[in-house]
Amino acid sequence: MSRGLYIGRFQPFHKGHLRAVKWILEREDELIIGIGSAQYSYTLRNPFTVGERIYMIWTTLKSEGLLDRIMFSAIPDTDSQHSTWVSHVKTYTPPFDKVYTNDPLSQILFQDEGIDVQPIPFFDREIYSATRIRNLIIEDNKEWMNLVPKPVAEFIIKIGGDKRIKKLASI
Amino acid sequence: MSRGLYIGRFQPFHKGHLRAVKWILEREDELIIGIGSAQYSYTLRNPFTVGERIYMIWTTLKSEGLLDRIMFSAIPDTDSQHSTWVSHVKTYTPPFDKVYTNDPLSQILFQDEGIDVQPIPFFDREIYSATRIRNLIIEDNKEWMNLVPKPVAEFIIKIGGDKRIKKLASI
Amino acid sequence: MSRGLYIGRFQPFHKGHLRAVKWILEREDELIIGIGSAQYSYTLRNPFTVGERIYMIWTTLKSEGLLDRIMFSAIPDTDSQHSTWVSHVKTYTPPFDKVYTNDPLSQILFQDEGIDVQPIPFFDREIYSATRIRNLIIEDNKEWMNLVPKPVAEFIIKIGGDKRIKKLASI
Amino acid sequence: MSRGLYIGRFQPFHKGHLRAVKWILEREDELIIGIGSAQYSYTLRNPFTVGERIYMIWTTLKSEGLLDRIMFSAIPDTDSQHSTWVSHVKTYTPPFDKVYTNDPLSQILFQDEGIDVQPIPFFDREIYSATRIRNLIIEDNKEWMNLVPKPVAEFIIKIGGDKRIKKLASI
Amino acid sequence: MSRGLYIGRFQPFHKGHLRAVKWILEREDELIIGIGSAQYSYTLRNPFTVGERIYMIWTTLKSEGLLDRIMFSAIPDTDSQHSTWVSHVKTYTPPFDKVYTNDPLSQILFQDEGIDVQPIPFFDREIYSATRIRNLIIEDNKEWMNLVPKPVAEFIIKIGGDKRIKKLASI
Amino acid sequence: MSRGLYIGRFQPFHKGHLRAVKWILEREDELIIGIGSAQYSYTLRNPFTVGERIYMIWTTLKSEGLLDRIMFSAIPDTDSQHSTWVSHVKTYTPPFDKVYTNDPLSQILFQDEGIDVQPIPFFDREIYSATRIRNLIIEDNKEWMNLVPKPVAEFIIKIGGDKRIKKLASI
Repeated sequence: MSRGLYIGRFQPFHKGHLRAVKWILEREDELIIGIGSAQYSYTLRNPFTVGERIYMIWTTLKSEGLLDRIMFSAIPDTDSQHSTWVSHVKTYTPPFDKVYTNDPLSQILFQDEGIDVQPIPFFDREIYSATRIRNLIIEDNKEWMNLVPKPVAEFIIKIGGDKRIKKLASI
Repeated sequence: MSRGLYIGRFQPFHKGHLRAVKWILEREDELIIGIGSAQYSYTLRNPFTVGERIYMIWTTLKSEGLLDRIMFSAIPDTDSQHSTWVSHVKTYTPPFDKVYTNDPLSQILFQDEGIDVQPIPFFDREIYSATRIRNLIIEDNKEWMNLVPKPVAEFIIKIGGDKRIKKLASI
Repeated sequence: MSRGLYIGRFQPFHKGHLRAVKWILEREDELIIGIGSAQYSYTLRNPFTVGERIYMIWTTLKSEGLLDRIMFSAIPDTDSQHSTWVSHVKTYTPPFDKVYTNDPLSQILFQDEGIDVQPIPFFDREIYSATRIRNLIIEDNKEWMNLVPKPVAEFIIKIGGDKRIKKLASI
Repeated sequence: MSRGLYIGRFQPFHKGHLRAVKWILEREDELIIGIGSAQYSYTLRNPFTVGERIYMIWTTLKSEGLLDRIMFSAIPDTDSQHSTWVSHVKTYTPPFDKVYTNDPLSQILFQDEGIDVQPIPFFDREIYSATRIRNLIIEDNKEWMNLVPKPVAEFIIKIGGDKRIKKLASI
Repeated sequence: MSRGLYIGRFQPFHKGHLRAVKWILEREDELIIGIGSAQYSYTLRNPFTVGERIYMIWTTLKSEGLLDRIMFSAIPDTDSQHSTWVSHVKTYTPPFDKVYTNDPLSQILFQDEGIDVQPIPFFDREIYSATRIRNLIIEDNKEWMNLVPKPVAEFIIKIGGDKRIKKLASI
Repeated sequence: MSRGLYIGRFQPFHKGHLRAVKWILEREDELIIGIGSAQYSYTLRNPFTVGERIYMIWTTLKSEGLLDRIMFSAIPDTDSQHSTWVSHVKTYTPPFDKVYTNDPLSQILFQDEGIDVQPIPFFDREIYSATRIRNLIIEDNKEWMNLVPKPVAEFIIKIGGDKRIKKLASI
C-alpha cells in the first residue's frame, strides 16, 4: 500500500494536472492532492479561492471515477519560512511515502528532510499551463475551455471566474 | 442540486459524526465536511493533526461508499476575530446552501450573514462524544474502539494515537 | 496646546465613559480615544465590532458637540507581546502628551517608556460598568438603556446587539 | 440618512482627497474615511504612520467644519487574503450603504459581495497625487506645500516628515 | 564531539538552572540554551523580555568561565501549532544531538520526530523554582536574591525587575 | 562600561563582518550581535537558517577568543511595520548604548527614537560581501572559502550549504 503527495496551486485545475494525477495513480495506490497557497485568491496569479479549487478538482475526479483513491488537503503558505515548510505540509496531510513535484524549492526542502521526491513528466506543457489558460481568458479566447476538464470550465463560467480574471488583469 | 456544510473538529471522528453525515445526506445531495481548528494538534483537546483527521474521515467514508457525495476542507481558526469567520469559512469551502451545526456561536455568525443554519439531532450523545472517547483512552478502557468506525480505530492504533493522548493527559 | 490619550474597549460605550471624556477635556485641549482590542467581536466580553464601537462613540460625542476636540483610533491587540505595546499604540495614534488610564499594565508599560500616566476618577463605578450593562442585557433588564447615552441605546437596539449578547451568553 | 465609505492610504492627505470628500458629502449624509494599510509606515510608499495620517485628516476637516459628518477608521491590511477583505473592512467600520473608490480590486471585491460601488471623479489628478507630492519633497521642491491643506503642510514640517521622506528615498 | 539542547523560559535564570547547565556539560561537549516564549514579557508568568533573559544567562556563564562551550538562541512560541514545533526549534538552533528537558509535551514532540530526549535531575526543586522566586519578590522577601546567581540579582535590581513583578502582581 | 549593538543578516558571516566586530570592540566594552531576518532561510538571499548563522558566528568568535565580550540574539523581522522596529529590537536584545549600522532605514528608525547610531567603515567591501560570496558559490568558484573565516567554510561544506545555494540559484 503506497501513497503519494502531489502539491500544486491549481489556478485553475487543467487537463495537464489531470494527466499527472493519472500518471501518479499508475505508480501509487493512493494520492493526496495538496492545494497550496490556500489563503490567497483574487490576484492575477491566484484568482480562485481554495474552496473553488477544491470543487474544481473534486468534480473532475468524480466524473473520472477516481475519488476512492484520492484525498484532498488545503495547505496555507508560510511566507518565506521555508525551513518549517515540510513539517507544515506533514501537519496538513495524511501520511505519505513519496512527493511528486517539479518545484525545485520543494525538491530541496523535502530531500533535506530525507523524503523521496519524484519529478512529474510534463504533458504538452506548452499547451496545458495555468498561466497560459489565464492569459487566454484575459484575451477573451474561448480556447481556454478546451484546456480544462469540462466540469471545471462549467464551474468557472457559473461563478463568473472568467470575468473575475479579466477584471484582475485590468488592475 | 443542494449542498450542505458540516463543520467540526473531529478529535477523533466517531460513529455519532458518521450518523450525522448520513442524516444530512438524506437532506442534501452533496456535503462539505469542514475540519475546523486545522492548525492545532498535540493538545488534549486537539490531539490529532488535521492531516490525520482527513485520513480518518476519508477512509471511513470510503468504506461506506460515500466519497462521491462528500468534499473535504481543512479550515484554520482565526483566533477570536469572529466577525470575519463566515467569510473565512466561505474562502476555504466550495459554495454551499445550508450550514449544519449545533455550535451556538456558529449559528449566530452564519445567521447574521443571512445564511440558513440547521441543528443536527444528537445520536446517543451520552455514548458518542469525542471528549468521552479521549477520556476512555486515557483510562485505558478499550471500549473507545467500539465508538469509532473500524478504520478510525485501526489508524489511531497504527500511528500510536492512543499513546499520544495518554502522554498528553500526563502534562 | 495639550493632547491626552484615553484607551478603552468600550463594550459598550456608557455614561461613565462619557463623564471620563468630559473630565479629561477639562484638563486637555484635545483628546484621542483609542479603541482597544480592535480585532475582536462576537464574544461575551467583546460583543461589538470596532466599527460598531466607533459609531457608538462618534454619535454620542456629536450629540454632545464635542467632535472638534476628539480624535479616534482603532488599536488592534498584540497578544501578550507587551514590550512593544507602547510603540504599537504610538503608531496608531496622533502625538499625545499624557495617557489617562486605570489599567495597571498600561500604567507600567507607559511609565517604563517615560510617558506621563494619569488615573481617571471613577464615576459611580458600581452603576456604570460595561460588564454590568452586558449582564443586565442578558437578564433582559431594560435598566441597561439608562446606563448608556441615548444614541448608543438606539444603535444597539437597531443592530440587534442586545439579542447578540443574549445568544453569546447561551454558549 | 445615507452613509458612504471612502478608503485610501492618504500618504499624505492632499487637496485632491479633500475635494473628493466634499464631492461625496454632496451625495451622502455621512462619510466614513477608512485609512488603509494602517500597519505600514517608514517606507517610501507609506512614509507616515496611521496615527500621523489620522491627525492630518482630522485637523483639515476640523478647519473645514466637517467633523460632524465624518467618521474615521484605521484599517490594517490582510496581505493577499483578498476573499476576506470586505468582511474585514466591515468589521473596522460603522455600517455603510455605498463604497466610493477607484481601486479596481476593491471594486471587484465589494461588487462580488453585492455592495454598491461608485467611482470618484479625479480632480486635477496630474497635479494632486500623493506620489507626485512625495517626489516633490524628495526633489526639495517646496511646491508640495501648495498641494496639501495648510494644516497638513504644517504638521509634516513639525514632525520632520519631509526629512523622513528624503532619507527613505536614499535607501 | 556532542552537542545538547536545553530549552527553558528562564523567568528568571536561577541557581537550579545553572546546576542543570553544569550537569549537562558533564555529558556533552557543547550546549545550546534555547530561551523559549521569546516574544512574551511583562506578564506575571513571563516578566522579563528575551533580551533581559539573554543578559542574565550570559553574564552568569561569563562569571563561571563557561561561555566557550555554550551557544544561545531566542525561540519565539508558535501558539498551539505543536506539530511544527520541532521543526521550528531546529530552525532557531545550531545542529544538536540530544534534547534535555523535563517538559512532557516537548518529550512527546521530539520523540515523535525520532530525536533523543533526556530528563534533567531536579536540584532542590522545592527551593530553586522560578515561580517561587517570583512569589518571594511579590512578598518582598529578599531571600529571592540567594536563589539566583549574583549577577542575575544585580541585573534585576538595576533594571527595576523586582518592582515590575510586584506591579504585575497587582493587576 | 559601554555596550554596542551590531545588526546584520550574516548570510553568511564573512571576514568583513569579523573585522567590523573587532573594530567595534576597540570602541565598546561589549557587543551584541543581532541576527536579523531570523525566520527566513532557504532563499537565495537568505540561504541559512538563523541557527546555522548562530553557529557560524559563535565558532568563529570562539576561535578568536572573543566570546566573553559578545552576546547573541536572533531577531525575527516584522514585515514592513517599521514604526515598531526599534521597540521590537530592544525586546530581543540586552540593553545597549549605541547602534552600529550602515543601513539607512535602521539609521532613521533608531535616530527618530533618540538612539545614537554610528556607521561602520567598510573593509575591502568589493571583496568581502555576502552577495559576492553567494555568487562565487553559485559559479563553483572555490575562492569563496578564502572570504569567510575557516570555521565558517568548514561548517558550510559540512551541512551542504554550498550545494543548497546552487540549487536555490536554479529555481
